[in-house]
Amino acid sequence: MSETVRVVVDAMGGDNAPGEIVKGAVEAVQAENDIKVFLVGRQDAVNAELEKYTYDKEKIEVVHAEEVIEMAEPPVNAIRKKKQSSLVVGMNMIKHQEADAIVTAGSTGATLVGGQVLVGRIKGIERPPLAPLVPTEKGVSLLIDCGANVDARPSHLVQFAQIGSIYMENIVGIKNPRVAILNIGAEEEKGNQLVKETFPLLKECPGINFIGSIEAREIPHGGADVIVCEAFAGNIVLKLYEGVAATLLSKVKEGLMSSLRSKIGALLIKPALKQTLKSFDASQYGGAPLLGLNGLVIKTHGSAKAIDVKNSILQCVTFKQQDINGKIKEHIIVEK
Amino acid sequence: MSETVRVVVDAMGGDNAPGEIVKGAVEAVQAENDIKVFLVGRQDAVNAELEKYTYDKEKIEVVHAEEVIEMAEPPVNAIRKKKQSSLVVGMNMIKHQEADAIVTAGSTGATLVGGQVLVGRIKGIERPPLAPLVPTEKGVSLLIDCGANVDARPSHLVQFAQIGSIYMENIVGIKNPRVAILNIGAEEEKGNQLVKETFPLLKECPGINFIGSIEAREIPHGGADVIVCEAFAGNIVLKLYEGVAATLLSKVKEGLMSSLRSKIGALLIKPALKQTLKSFDASQYGGAPLLGLNGLVIKTHGSAKAIDVKNSILQCVTFKQQDINGKIKEHIIVEK
Repeated sequence: MSETVRVVVDAMGGDNAPGEIVKGAVEAVQAENDIKVFLVGRQDAVNAELEKYTYDKEKIEVVHAEEVIEMAEPPVNAIRKKKQSSLVVGMNMIKHQEADAIVTAGSTGATLVGGQVLVGRIKGIERPPLAPLVPTEKGVSLLIDCGANVDARPSHLVQFAQIGSIYMENIVGIKNPRVAILNIGAEEEKGNQLVKETFPLLKECPGINFIGSIEAREIPHGGADVIVCEAFAGNIVLKLYEGVAATLLSKVKEGLMSSLRSKIGALLIKPALKQTLKSFDASQYGGAPLLGLNGLVIKTHGSAKAIDVKNSILQCVTFKQQDINGKIKEHIIVEK
Repeated sequence: MSETVRVVVDAMGGDNAPGEIVKGAVEAVQAENDIKVFLVGRQDAVNAELEKYTYDKEKIEVVHAEEVIEMAEPPVNAIRKKKQSSLVVGMNMIKHQEADAIVTAGSTGATLVGGQVLVGRIKGIERPPLAPLVPTEKGVSLLIDCGANVDARPSHLVQFAQIGSIYMENIVGIKNPRVAILNIGAEEEKGNQLVKETFPLLKECPGINFIGSIEAREIPHGGADVIVCEAFAGNIVLKLYEGVAATLLSKVKEGLMSSLRSKIGALLIKPALKQTLKSFDASQYGGAPLLGLNGLVIKTHGSAKAIDVKNSILQCVTFKQQDINGKIKEHIIVEK
């Protein structure tokens, strides 16, 4: 039997808290043996949800936290002042090694700040990146960094490349993952100052499979497994992905509903279409990990449902079992 | 009768040159009266194409240019060394005021370099931006800058906002266009250094309707009419738009073809779907203008067909008739 992985779940974070969050936690402990979940939040509300389910009581423990960090609160203030919030209480459990990982659907800003301030960085990691998976024609690619560190420096991007490679190889199971730097042309001389300075460092970086630049157009085609970028650019990619997909699918839907003929056609294509669009979705892999910390912080989206919470919890188990942090400590180049 | 607008067309640029380019020129002179087109390229090849059509001979003149700039050539070298190329000969005609505008489907890099070096900037314009329109749920939005100036400064972005407003109001016909800065959050304190420095300047900038930050997610929803950004970010937006749309539509197609049932459905929905997807397309507005020059340079995509060339030529006519450059000279804030 493997070691039990202890996962904190922020029961109060996100639009569907605590109902969907608690449900996801129950589903996770039903699916996985070597796990203990700590549901952190308002005891009464969490218990009221838990009572709806049958599960192994030893695998879920409720930890009371009186306060809730709201989505719109300034992150630094929230982390500093709301010491009794579910997020702060939960992150402090990682800090004090009472748990291995935390999953939250709450404020991204507060999660990033709390991750750095409370959970803390692995020694030598300069900037912990937020690294979601995006769907591609071929599967998924890791976009690293997507929002944690704007105006990053070349040495940060080199660490992102290394951390991302370890993650994709061990969590997603891509052998020798192709690493590319997000750029505005395929040639080495293209790009802004940051890319031009980073490119030669990546070429020389040992232990990664660097394939050069990737243009944004090639990301959905699966042109690289690990896409290294500064957070401003990465965040734009992540959000535009959502925006274009949503708009285009609503246009398709509008077309399907525009005549009687097309409505009949829509009924016929629905199951097949649902199936292929399901393959263009990264949510089965869980949430976006904030990497390079003493523990793991998973940010799942604000509108997360039970299935997303469950997948994020299981992602924490794989992360711990694969000893990703041990591998990061072993392999990362630290600037002297 | 209005003044005749003189448009140079690079007959040798793009994947479909000279056939589609010449065809587009013929269609443009058939559609518009106050126009004279100069087809610049290899005389024999261009004339051979022209012979296929019936058109007013006074409206099209062939200008011989022996050389062709290839897509992969280093732009600066190409412009400097290939003095007899269609692009250089054509741009020199703008420089010498023998024409008002140029349309090319050739190398973007060479077009940007040639625009700055040969056509030249309007006095006071620091960096001429490349400004394509992208389709949205509601119509189109102008993305300015999309590839001309990486690592731009705040004062450049302020000029982009002003130039973009003039363009959208007078060419696309959007009254008092909403200007937003591309950012990674809606709040004023969000963003990288460039955005934080530019934001207050845009707030104070007279003559524009600044509505604050726009997240990439909101671009396809039509959240702003003019989206101000530095070229690295803008280029990512432009190319990811294409990439996500292409991948998603190929997924939809895959779904439609996956069973007999879905294939029958596909036949029924095809006309309606084609219609709505057509509305998510900006090509009817022509190509991407490089703005702020002494004349107009339009870059249409490398795989441009006759219809794209025609629309780009007509765009030049509107640009001249609306006296966009006169308005730019009048309104742009020039840093002392």
